[in-house]
Amino acid sequence: MSDCGNLFEGFDPGAAQERFDTLLSRPGLRIERVVSTGQASAPDHWYDQPQAEWVVLLTGSAVLRFEDEAEPRMLRPGDWLAIAPHRRHRVEATDAQTPSVWLAAHSGD
Amino acid sequence: MSDCGNLFEGFDPGAAQERFDTLLSRPGLRIERVVSTGQASAPDHWYDQPQAEWVVLLTGSAVLRFEDEAEPRMLRPGDWLAIAPHRRHRVEATDAQTPSVWLAAHSGD
Repeated sequence: MSDCGNLFEGFDPGAAQERFDTLLSRPGLRIERVVSTGQASAPDHWYDQPQAEWVVLLTGSAVLRFEDEAEPRMLRPGDWLAIAPHRRHRVEATDAQTPSVWLAAHSGD
Repeated sequence: MSDCGNLFEGFDPGAAQERFDTLLSRPGLRIERVVSTGQASAPDHWYDQPQAEWVVLLTGSAVLRFEDEAEPRMLRPGDWLAIAPHRRHRVEATDAQTPSVWLAAHSGD
């Protein structure tokens, strides 16, 4: 694993699949870049993660829904959220024109 | 502490001082936003941190120097680095025109 890089390079902006790159992995912490190019979570799929997640959207746009909220959240560049373990959420949509670069820190055991 | 926000809001782009905001603090992990508006580390000051740091520059530009490297590193938006505990480094310069927004994850005990 490299100890440096650039978040906005090294991906295909027209990729058919979401891209996941682990940038740092150490006990209790994993930092990951995700690049979405129009994908969304599968219908009726909810993320239900044992670890806490801190995530920020850096480019593009996205629609994030928490199961415990009535309305989805519209995310734009710079928007960050702390997501508690097991708080169920899904990505309803990501930008179809501009790649959505996310940075996520997964922490805890 | 809030559980959401925007990295690119809530600061004065012409501030005389660097701004530090802790966005997440939990055992073993602290996530911090730093906004530099032309500041540099004090002359001959070296950061020498007991915790590992993962840092990314998101806007602006900066010159970072490691004591164990001959040449400084010129950072531009998206550039990230993992800095080992006690690896001495300093910020030689930050952009005087555009605010330099950094995101840092400090991990370990």
